[in-house]
Amino acid sequence: MNRLIASTAIGVIAAALASPASAELKPGDQIEYRQAGYSFMAWNMGKIKDNLQGDFNQEQVIKAANAIAAVANSGMGALYGPGTDKAAGGHKTRVKPELFKPENAEEVGRIAHEFLAAADNLAEVAAEGDKAAVQTAFGDVGKACKSCHEKFRLNDDD
Amino acid sequence: MNRLIASTAIGVIAAALASPASAELKPGDQIEYRQAGYSFMAWNMGKIKDNLQGDFNQEQVIKAANAIAAVANSGMGALYGPGTDKAAGGHKTRVKPELFKPENAEEVGRIAHEFLAAADNLAEVAAEGDKAAVQTAFGDVGKACKSCHEKFRLNDDD
Repeated sequence: MNRLIASTAIGVIAAALASPASAELKPGDQIEYRQAGYSFMAWNMGKIKDNLQGDFNQEQVIKAANAIAAVANSGMGALYGPGTDKAAGGHKTRVKPELFKPENAEEVGRIAHEFLAAADNLAEVAAEGDKAAVQTAFGDVGKACKSCHEKFRLNDDD
Repeated sequence: MNRLIASTAIGVIAAALASPASAELKPGDQIEYRQAGYSFMAWNMGKIKDNLQGDFNQEQVIKAANAIAAVANSGMGALYGPGTDKAAGGHKTRVKPELFKPENAEEVGRIAHEFLAAADNLAEVAAEGDKAAVQTAFGDVGKACKSCHEKFRLNDDD
């Protein structure tokens, strides 16, 4: 493999998620931490969904949206280092090898940027407190999640 | 058990972490999500530690501190509902039953408040960019983590 192109692909992911790669973390730890981030964001997405479908508690929605945005902006690109394209250290992963391929670097970067923008927007809209606007912004975050899951994550039944 | 006192104890935890309890989540899911939150905070604490011991990248420290503060403020008290004092849904937990006892409610609330205050302070100090001040604020968060772990979490060798 062309190392320059490969490192560029990783670099695009890392830059898109705004953090240098962590050289010290083992691949299994990287997988564990990135899954923790996605799991925690999923909990907070669920809370916002509950608020949109029931009583709208703006304080809870703000806290959940802030958590999603801060996790999204924390530099999770560093958790996709070499060796994390498959199970490592006892930690399985559903990421597809395609995520790491140089020819997909531009698309991965685009999806990552869209996700960050949608997460930031949700946090801003939540602070303003308009339920309909939160509904739209929440949908945009969901679409950004889904666009990556559909292309770069294995389904449970794969 | 006196239900009023018991519910007050849970209420103090929930209020301290600023979120209503989630009635819909299964105990196993609550354990999974709270562990995800602590794991993700641990990754970000590790990044700040690396920055304090090596080259100080303020942008990375700010992002990590913001993630810790946002996760801490997201209402994790809702993830300590009934049935989460022991393994559930295939998810083990190291929480001690003492955390849920009414006689410890005041202490749990105090520790939770100290943790939130320390996490908020770290995020504020990180934004200012003074490495020595970040070192102090980081130490305060670590102490708050430790005070809960020592009293309310089983050790690995327990």
